[in-house]
Amino acid sequence: MNQIASATAIANPNIAFIKYWGDKDPMLRIPANGSLSMNLSNLQSRTTVSYDSTLERDELILDRKVPDDLAVERVTRFLDHVRHLAGISYYARVESENNFPTGSGIASSASAFAALSLAASKAAGLQLDERSLSRLARRGSGSACRSVPAGFVEWQSGEDDDSSYAFSLAAPEHWQLYDCIAIVSQEHKKTGSREGHALAETSLLQNARVGDTTRRLDLCRQAILNRDFQAFAEIVELDSNLMHAVMMTSQPRLFYWQPATLAVMRAVVDWRRNGIPVCFTIDAGPNVHVITLADHSSRVIADLIQIPGVSKVLVSGPGKAVRLSVE
Amino acid sequence: MNQIASATAIANPNIAFIKYWGDKDPMLRIPANGSLSMNLSNLQSRTTVSYDSTLERDELILDRKVPDDLAVERVTRFLDHVRHLAGISYYARVESENNFPTGSGIASSASAFAALSLAASKAAGLQLDERSLSRLARRGSGSACRSVPAGFVEWQSGEDDDSSYAFSLAAPEHWQLYDCIAIVSQEHKKTGSREGHALAETSLLQNARVGDTTRRLDLCRQAILNRDFQAFAEIVELDSNLMHAVMMTSQPRLFYWQPATLAVMRAVVDWRRNGIPVCFTIDAGPNVHVITLADHSSRVIADLIQIPGVSKVLVSGPGKAVRLSVE
Repeated sequence: MNQIASATAIANPNIAFIKYWGDKDPMLRIPANGSLSMNLSNLQSRTTVSYDSTLERDELILDRKVPDDLAVERVTRFLDHVRHLAGISYYARVESENNFPTGSGIASSASAFAALSLAASKAAGLQLDERSLSRLARRGSGSACRSVPAGFVEWQSGEDDDSSYAFSLAAPEHWQLYDCIAIVSQEHKKTGSREGHALAETSLLQNARVGDTTRRLDLCRQAILNRDFQAFAEIVELDSNLMHAVMMTSQPRLFYWQPATLAVMRAVVDWRRNGIPVCFTIDAGPNVHVITLADHSSRVIADLIQIPGVSKVLVSGPGKAVRLSVE
Repeated sequence: MNQIASATAIANPNIAFIKYWGDKDPMLRIPANGSLSMNLSNLQSRTTVSYDSTLERDELILDRKVPDDLAVERVTRFLDHVRHLAGISYYARVESENNFPTGSGIASSASAFAALSLAASKAAGLQLDERSLSRLARRGSGSACRSVPAGFVEWQSGEDDDSSYAFSLAAPEHWQLYDCIAIVSQEHKKTGSREGHALAETSLLQNARVGDTTRRLDLCRQAILNRDFQAFAEIVELDSNLMHAVMMTSQPRLFYWQPATLAVMRAVVDWRRNGIPVCFTIDAGPNVHVITLADHSSRVIADLIQIPGVSKVLVSGPGKAVRLSVE
């Protein structure tokens, strides 16, 4: 008899203001340092998990295509952990869809594994609280743990599987920060962030970056809680530069910036000098996340799209927690 | 009665392969770390110093113009030291001319103060040996001490005025390295390197960079002595990235790269991946010094000039020591 148990979940990706780069434990994704992020309301992964007694292996459909074997293995390893927690043995069909381009420097793995965590655990009959869900998502992709709680989120690095999870610092309604993502290139990046994390410690600058994290987290957390944009801008740009400093001095060197990336960075710094509340932050990709306040977003978007090399701008406010789809 | 004593000297600027950034003693220009460079044969400052008993103050003509008061004060302070060493009191007329654009990221202060050191000391009746001349030039502009000896030059950081000087590692004929400078912008830079040095220690990455210098100097020195381009390229690019990592994380942040700077950096890395012996290094300006071997220089120059944003390419081989003009 064919037994099916199914659930669908939705999660937003997140943009880190204090970045995660490098692991203390690469298997469990215990990060070298704590980090801080905001979920992105208008971008999402929508993931359905159906455990099916007739399947002979896990099946994965990603953006309506069968992905490469590595991606399937990664999901199977993740589902094995969920099956172990739930005490079930059925294989699953996983269908996941992003409403934004995969592998372009917008963290699709974060929203994908956050949604997968909720859908896979729910369909398996588990009732995980937010902390457990965040810990589970972390095993799939480190930064996915930050896409589990709502709004403005901190990931405390912790020391082991129990202590490394993310929690909400403030609800989405707390501060109308907008992330205007200037899309510079939609090419799939050469070095994914997973491989990149392993290179972090080959930079002689990584220890200094990690050692200073508590200070930066404190400054960023306070700036968000106080809605102090100037203080926020200062620490966010510094943190982004610190991560890229580590990347461009690792072995082999990782260089994610394109000429247009730099054009946007320079423009943003000029605009802020002219009184616009705006700052940049860049993940492991060429796109520039341009952070501003809701009131200034129309002007910022219009100006960004004028910069040569910027093909489009994706806009989000603070996003919700991971949730089940009610359809 | 009008007494005049005059001398003219010529010096090349230099490109640092292991960079100087930050001072232990800003007044005496004792650097935070040792550095290593090559003089640039085709670029030069030509400086004439004439002590004249009728002058009531020092006069400076730079590239046929009267420069601002700050530049004159800097030269007067330097000449005061020479007058002190020589036991003379006459003011001087100083005329200096560069055959390359001032303030564009090519270190004009290095060649200018190296030439000034020789011309001013000679006209004052001093016979300084190379080491004393290098120490003298260092007081005018740190990296000027490296434009005193010939060819490939190391500046040992030292601890005080006596021990901080540069010496030749190898003559210009040792290795036919060419520096093809891709000129990206000739605008005068917003933050001069003098002000920049003072900011080095505001970056939390500077200590790690400085602490690793002995290792990088050893690797670079050996690569030059062995004419090992691959090893040379690896350490030169890493060192340049380390300095810019410090710059872009200092307070305030220093960002010298333009979009075209990044386009050249990326092209150079691609070319090397395709077997061309070529690497980049960047000083406190937007231009990219593209280092290659003589045999490959025509091709590299032709390819550089095709990159959008590159307005011209200046080419030099290894240059000589500072010398008196015989005209």
